[in-house]
Amino acid sequence: MKSYPEEYKEKLSIEKKLTRYYKKEARKNGLSSLDRIKAYLPDEYVFGGMRRGFAIAHMGLEPIIECIARNKPFTVVSGLNPSSPLHLGHKALFDVLVDLQKLGAEVHIPLTNDESYVDGKAASIEESRQTAYEQIIPDLVSLGFAPDRTKMYVLTDTPIIYRFAMGISRLVTYEMVKAVFGKESLVNIGQIFYRGVVQLAQILLPQLPEYGGPKPTLIPVGIDQHPYVLLARGVAKKLGMIPPSELVVKFQPSLLDPEQKMSGSKPNTAIYLTDTEEDIRKKISRAYSGAVTSLVDHQQFGALPEICPVFTLLANHHPDDIFVKNVRLEYASGRMTTQELKTITSDFIVDMIQNHQEKRARVTKRDIDSFMLERVL
Amino acid sequence: MKSYPEEYKEKLSIEKKLTRYYKKEARKNGLSSLDRIKAYLPDEYVFGGMRRGFAIAHMGLEPIIECIARNKPFTVVSGLNPSSPLHLGHKALFDVLVDLQKLGAEVHIPLTNDESYVDGKAASIEESRQTAYEQIIPDLVSLGFAPDRTKMYVLTDTPIIYRFAMGISRLVTYEMVKAVFGKESLVNIGQIFYRGVVQLAQILLPQLPEYGGPKPTLIPVGIDQHPYVLLARGVAKKLGMIPPSELVVKFQPSLLDPEQKMSGSKPNTAIYLTDTEEDIRKKISRAYSGAVTSLVDHQQFGALPEICPVFTLLANHHPDDIFVKNVRLEYASGRMTTQELKTITSDFIVDMIQNHQEKRARVTKRDIDSFMLERVL
Repeated sequence: MKSYPEEYKEKLSIEKKLTRYYKKEARKNGLSSLDRIKAYLPDEYVFGGMRRGFAIAHMGLEPIIECIARNKPFTVVSGLNPSSPLHLGHKALFDVLVDLQKLGAEVHIPLTNDESYVDGKAASIEESRQTAYEQIIPDLVSLGFAPDRTKMYVLTDTPIIYRFAMGISRLVTYEMVKAVFGKESLVNIGQIFYRGVVQLAQILLPQLPEYGGPKPTLIPVGIDQHPYVLLARGVAKKLGMIPPSELVVKFQPSLLDPEQKMSGSKPNTAIYLTDTEEDIRKKISRAYSGAVTSLVDHQQFGALPEICPVFTLLANHHPDDIFVKNVRLEYASGRMTTQELKTITSDFIVDMIQNHQEKRARVTKRDIDSFMLERVL
Repeated sequence: MKSYPEEYKEKLSIEKKLTRYYKKEARKNGLSSLDRIKAYLPDEYVFGGMRRGFAIAHMGLEPIIECIARNKPFTVVSGLNPSSPLHLGHKALFDVLVDLQKLGAEVHIPLTNDESYVDGKAASIEESRQTAYEQIIPDLVSLGFAPDRTKMYVLTDTPIIYRFAMGISRLVTYEMVKAVFGKESLVNIGQIFYRGVVQLAQILLPQLPEYGGPKPTLIPVGIDQHPYVLLARGVAKKLGMIPPSELVVKFQPSLLDPEQKMSGSKPNTAIYLTDTEEDIRKKISRAYSGAVTSLVDHQQFGALPEICPVFTLLANHHPDDIFVKNVRLEYASGRMTTQELKTITSDFIVDMIQNHQEKRARVTKRDIDSFMLERVL
């Protein structure tokens, strides 16, 4: 039996902790494994997020798979809090949405500027509204979505959301919302209304008759967000709508700590789509890694790619499955050093983001308009 | 010392109870008497509601009086829950608003169809929206308001209200709202959002720059609504707006019970502006009165006009001060019988409502449009 160095043992215990965390949450919430569904699917229905292990579990995904197979309409809804520029954690998720769109999905992206305000991440609704239009939407538009099947909207500019939210507000009690979100995230009235019903209105909007509903919808969420999917499923049933399906994705780890999320409000944990080459190389060079410090030990024991934020960047963003698989093997075996991994990853990410920035520079007002949900009074 | 019959003693104790109730509430809430302000006002500034004792107390009315005296702009905001047709309790209040408009006020009448829904008085927002447009607004338009200084709006058709409500929602905590309204009226999320901030948005709307604010505003309320005026005053200060002034009016009593309110949802307690002559005469003939049953006793002890819902109809609606004063004296002295009072009142109310109904029949779509707040997205 090998005797691991202390540093390796520590990393191993983080890996175990994360694996346990996802397993425990999935079991607790009654989520289903994607492996089973994957096994029944022809290859062309297995999208990137499923293949690479970024998507890890689901609830009620079957109607979506059926829509894909039978070429029937369905909508994926993925809201975005416009309180900071987009980072690679966002891009990883939106890449899954682009994949799903290729399989037939209509994509809704509500920009929740009211959420930014109620949670104190923006000084005012107007401030986060401007961030949405000026910083976020041009980035979103450059991610490869099809304009005819993508609907973006800024919440406070979309009156139907509030009318719909108010119109279902009798179905949701304070006690229900408290049970889902906890009292500490329901301090002000805006937080209660946003979490209680505005969020539901975004999820259920595609099922209104004027948007072609009822129809299957899919919500990609972090595993900690499962309770509010349950709330949405319950209210959908009361409204005679189809309970939304849930796809659980792993969080993109902070560059500095595999147990934390990449966060837009902590610049050193995240790579933004607006970062320069220098920013990116500096951030990756300072990142936490899946390998021990001693090169000799690394070569003997290998690295743990699962807890390496750098490898995760590659796994979540690189288009070539075989390349990613090889890097994983090389790194895990100890043949590839952390330095080498960081160089490969930096080169790739710099290239990807520069490509993105070139696309973004070409985005016109007309392009943006083609992606926006029509404002309905 | 007279020995009162039991029935008279009962009525006397109701009168005392009501007087005590208003006094106690006014003292508890730190309200000021209107008598003092009246003494400083030229006669032409003493509007109907003040003269007849329908308005009974105030908080911070001075800026309004100054606006009247100096001919400066101010706005009176009086919301209406469109869950039943208008009744005479509403008309009494709106007559005060018409008086105030003659003194220079701009009048805002928000129709709170979302409130009807969240409190279960309408099956859906759409239902109360239709009630507002089809039943309530044509009646309101016939009450004598000046179209150029009156702005009516249906809440769920007025996006700026929700944007504004959401935009101030961080200033109001659940605990603050619970302290004002009590947990039992904050069961569902709509009730929390409506009572917490939508109501404030209506009150503070005239103070937004796009509506010519900040400027003095006046809210007429029932004495039990004082705490939410306090909430509005507090939030106004935080927003750099002028704390709204409060005018407290007595409630219009139920026809059947002087201790209850006339209620739109209890047809026998109320006279609607849509009632027929037969309805009105029947309701008044069955009404509670301020006099004892025995005619001999009535002639000896007199009646108590203050607790007589029939006399209150006359006091709140008849235009002639001297006539009302004389009826009060005659009835209180026992010289006028309840039967006579009911006949006089029925004749007057039938005539008034029939006049109103004739006006209403002539209301056109264009008239209505001229009273509506422009919908701002």
